[in-house]
Order: sequence, then C-alpha cells, then structure tokens
Amino acid sequence: MTTSRHWELRRRPRGWPVHEDVALVDAETPSPGPGEVLVRNHYLSVDPYMRGRMNEARSYAAPYELGRPMYGGAVGQVVESRDEKVPVGTFVQHGLGWRTHAVLRGRAVVAVDAEAAPLPAYLGVLGMPGLTAWVGLYEIGAMRPGQTVWVSAATGAVGSLAGQLARLAGCRVVGSAGGEDKCRYAVEELGYAACVDHRAGSLTEQLREVLPDGLDLYFDNVGGDHLRAAVELANPFAHLVECGMIAAYNEKAPPVDNLFQIVGKKLTVRGFIVSDWADRQPLFHAHVAALLREGRIRYESTVVEGVERTFDAFLDLLRGGTHRGKLVVDVRGG
Amino acid sequence: MTTSRHWELRRRPRGWPVHEDVALVDAETPSPGPGEVLVRNHYLSVDPYMRGRMNEARSYAAPYELGRPMYGGAVGQVVESRDEKVPVGTFVQHGLGWRTHAVLRGRAVVAVDAEAAPLPAYLGVLGMPGLTAWVGLYEIGAMRPGQTVWVSAATGAVGSLAGQLARLAGCRVVGSAGGEDKCRYAVEELGYAACVDHRAGSLTEQLREVLPDGLDLYFDNVGGDHLRAAVELANPFAHLVECGMIAAYNEKAPPVDNLFQIVGKKLTVRGFIVSDWADRQPLFHAHVAALLREGRIRYESTVVEGVERTFDAFLDLLRGGTHRGKLVVDVRGG
Repeated sequence: MTTSRHWELRRRPRGWPVHEDVALVDAETPSPGPGEVLVRNHYLSVDPYMRGRMNEARSYAAPYELGRPMYGGAVGQVVESRDEKVPVGTFVQHGLGWRTHAVLRGRAVVAVDAEAAPLPAYLGVLGMPGLTAWVGLYEIGAMRPGQTVWVSAATGAVGSLAGQLARLAGCRVVGSAGGEDKCRYAVEELGYAACVDHRAGSLTEQLREVLPDGLDLYFDNVGGDHLRAAVELANPFAHLVECGMIAAYNEKAPPVDNLFQIVGKKLTVRGFIVSDWADRQPLFHAHVAALLREGRIRYESTVVEGVERTFDAFLDLLRGGTHRGKLVVDVRGG
Repeated sequence: MTTSRHWELRRRPRGWPVHEDVALVDAETPSPGPGEVLVRNHYLSVDPYMRGRMNEARSYAAPYELGRPMYGGAVGQVVESRDEKVPVGTFVQHGLGWRTHAVLRGRAVVAVDAEAAPLPAYLGVLGMPGLTAWVGLYEIGAMRPGQTVWVSAATGAVGSLAGQLARLAGCRVVGSAGGEDKCRYAVEELGYAACVDHRAGSLTEQLREVLPDGLDLYFDNVGGDHLRAAVELANPFAHLVECGMIAAYNEKAPPVDNLFQIVGKKLTVRGFIVSDWADRQPLFHAHVAALLREGRIRYESTVVEGVERTFDAFLDLLRGGTHRGKLVVDVRGG
C-alpha cells in the first residue's frame, strides 16, 4: 500500500464550480496486481472539458461519479510493476490524473520519451491538446494554404499549437486572447499576425481591423460572442471548427443572433471530440514531433506546484487565468 | 412593343414587407432583338429567398435594385423569337419572373416538356426547389438509409420533396408544419411517419414524442426555435442541413441557446445555396423525373390567379400561409 491523495467530486457544480463541490482525500493506493503497474504521477493535466464531466447530464465524456476519484490526463513514472513490458522507471502517460498515485493495467499506459521533451509536453503539445489542434485544422476545418484563420484562446494548450500549425501550413493567422500579456505573447512568441484582446472592447470591431478580408477558418474554443463574431466575419464557404465553447460551460453563453448567415454564406460549423480521432495519433505525432525537433514550434507549460492546488488551477483555467500554453500541476511533492 | 406589367421594388422593407415597398407597373416590353426571344409568362414563382434580395445588405443573391423590376423563376411560352433554336411556341423556364412578359437571350431560357409535367412543376418539384431538396439531402446532409430525418416546412416546395426523397432512400422521416391541415397532408399524402404542428405547443416536446431515438439529419427551412429543437434532439454525428431560415427573414429569430451541444454531439451544421450546385441538375433531374414517371413522388402546386396578386402570394408564403407544395402565380390573365 502506498499513501496517496486524490480528488473526489462530492456534488455536481451548478454554474461555476466551488470548493465545496470537491474534496482532496488521503487514501492508500494498493500494490499492483498481475499485469498492473503503480505509477507515481509527476504532472496532472487540467483541461476545460473536465467541467463537462462534473455534470450529470450525458456528455461526450462519461460523468464523474459522486464520491469517487476524478480522472484525466497525467504523466508519471512506474514505481512498481507486474507487467514486464513496462518496467520500473518507465515514464508513462495515462488517464488517471487528479491523484498522486495510480494503479493501472500495463496496457493502459503509454511510455513516453523523457529525453525528447519535458514530461509536461506529453500533456500538451505532444498530447491530447496537440492532437486536438491537429485534428481540428486538418480533419474538421479542411485547412488549406492561403486561407485566413482565426484561433480563439490563441495562447492556450490547444490554440497555441493550432495557430502555429496554421501559420506553418501557409495561412495568415490571427488570434484572440484575454489580456494584453497573452496577446503580446501570441504575436511575439507564437507568430500570430495579430492578436485581439477580447477584454478590450468589441470583439467584432477589433477583428474587423485585423481581418479586412474576412476569415476562411475559425478555430473555436470559446463559443458565445466569439462564435457570433466568426459568423459575422466569415467569408463564403468558411469552416467553423467547434473544438470547445468554454463560454457555455459555467453559465449561459451570450446568444448567437446571426445564425441565418450560415445559409447565405454557406458555412460549415462542425463540432468534434478528439477521442473519436485516436487513429490519427501516429500521423499527428510524426508531424509535430518533427516540427519540435526542427525548432519550428514553440510551446510552453505553466506549472502549478502541489496536488492541493489542482482544483484552484482548474478554476483558474476556466476563468481564463494568466497562464501560457498548457496548465499542469506538479504533484511530485505530494 | 407588347403591353406588359411588372413588379418593382420601391423601397427596401424593414422587417415584414408591406405594399408600400413595391409597385405593379404597366410597361411596354420591346420586341426581341437578334438572338432574343419574347416570352409570355404563364406562371411566376414566389420563393422565400426573394426576401433576402429586397435587402440592401450583401446576400448570396444580388439585391433587387430600387425602381427596377424584380425577378425570379418563371415559366411561359415563346411568342416572338429571333433565336432559331427556340422557336415560337416553345415552353420555357427562365429567371425573369415578377412580370407578365420577358425579353431574354435565347440562351438564357431552358425549354421544358409541357407534356411530361404541368408547367408549375418546373418551378417546384422539377425546378429550383426540387434541386434544393436533392442537394440538401445528398450533397450537404450525407443522407444514408436507416437514418432518422426531420424536415421542417414539411409541406412546402422544398420540404415536400425532401421528405419523400428521404423516405424513398430508406429513412424514417418526420415533418413539422404550421397547422393541422398541413400536418394531415404531410402524413396522409406525402408519407411522413409523423408531422408535428409547430403552432400547437412546444416544438421540442412534440418532437421528442415522435423522435424517441433522436435524429440523425435535420433539413432546416426555418431556423430559430426549430434549429434549437434540432440541436436538442440531435444524435451524435448528426447533420443539420441549413437550407433556409425563414424565421429570421423578417424579424429576429428566437435565439438558439444550446449551441454548445455542437461540440459534444459532434454535429455538422452546414449551409448551402442551390445555385452553387447547378452541375448536379442532370443527376437530380434524371432521378426525380424517373420517380415522377413511376408515380412514386407526390407533388402539388397552389396556384394564385392574377399578376396583381403576386405580392400578396409572396407575403402569404413568408407568413406560412395555407398553401400546399409550390406556390405559383398564374399571370396568363395579365
């Protein structure tokens, strides 16, 4: 038995989650059985989609059970193994986050190369958010060189890769983000042609200035007023990639009152969930890993220290926060 | 010169069009020049999309010019010809409606077979509305046998064919329409499995009863509350075909407040304009003309008599009216 800590959902949030909805629990993690491994987690992922799992309503993700540990992406190191294919010392990525230690079947973990990239990268640019960006552009948005692309949440885990991939594909790419710092980072570090601060006035008016010829592809992480602006600025036959709508996760998103333009502009508005596209993982990984080796992709992780701060990090993420790139929690200290 | 009458747009409607926005004008139609024909129109088409042409704002259709004749689909007979390929007596379809007589280049008219179908059919089931239904299902909606399909405005020019084509393709098809009479017609004559009256209570609740397993394809002619209901009832990977949004043409459509489901349900919401799909005309015509010959498709035209009633017929169409199938105006009486 290993002393461990995990987060449980105690009640389903109504609107914005609060501390009373969850609890950090001391527990004993059992030793691994045959074919299993014990992983000491190093980094936990917090992602916007987890808010959906806190609801009872059916969602694309099964809801978290009340009184049970929550879960999500994590990377760590195998510290006990009863699967010879995954020896002690192996760094692995898996789906039992929101906890310090996890027992899983050896087949349920994926070994990662800790030399090739820092461990948090496997929760970001090389992980689920990276694949999300890739699938959204190439499979859902039918991106083509020369298009004008807008990426919202442009500096987040998904957006920061989406923006760079679109630029490298030969598109003109503008971003939007919350706050001057993020916008400066978007332009200076991530290579966006421009980035508008959605907290600094009318989104549509600001976008009109940086998108004088409209937009052909919108990568939506926000919904609400962002989606409305995209419909307004869309060129005929534009694609709107519905990756996420964080504006609607905790409250009613602002209404989108211009949907009639979908007809006249012949828009395609298409939602997706990355788990349906797992078969694209090798293609994605080969592409992005090569770009990383060549130094053509920038990425950043914002690391919060301590398992006890996981929920606060998650709340910060939902509020937009001030982090850059992928937000992870370092739980090596317990 | 031929004495004729045509409708002009006198000012751009704000909201619902009124009689003061248009005028029926007596005129002289000149004799055809070289390569031209003079057509005496028999039937004029009134279609919801014409409302968009009355606006100044850029739309998929060029706006009607103020003080100039409006135009749209029409069928008639050549009464003078200076194009030997289109002799006097030929029945033709063309784009200069909203008038009793038209002079066009011979190349701008399409001869139609008045023996194969009554002339109004070339403005409906065999014309632009028919192609619209066909393209919406086969090209935009990716219809497949066994799917559950909802067609709104189920008894209209487009909907009545869309519903039948979907049924013949092996789908379970429900409709929605305004009023008991239309719903009865939809089920008894057009073969819908069920039809809900959107004037008779909650659309979503009524649909839930007839769509216990949700829907895979929604053919939208209405928008607003209809689009909201479709998102609510959509199954994962459903397609929402945005053919028209008549609820938004004259007033703000009711807001769609559940768009976040586009992500989780992985919906595809896609608008189209039939004129982009003109190359599908031969495929469509071969398909639907054969079904008509075999008696497997029902269609109906509602004929309003007299060019002076064209605008009232158009208004009636926008309000939903009581007509069945394609609404046309017989202008043979002048």
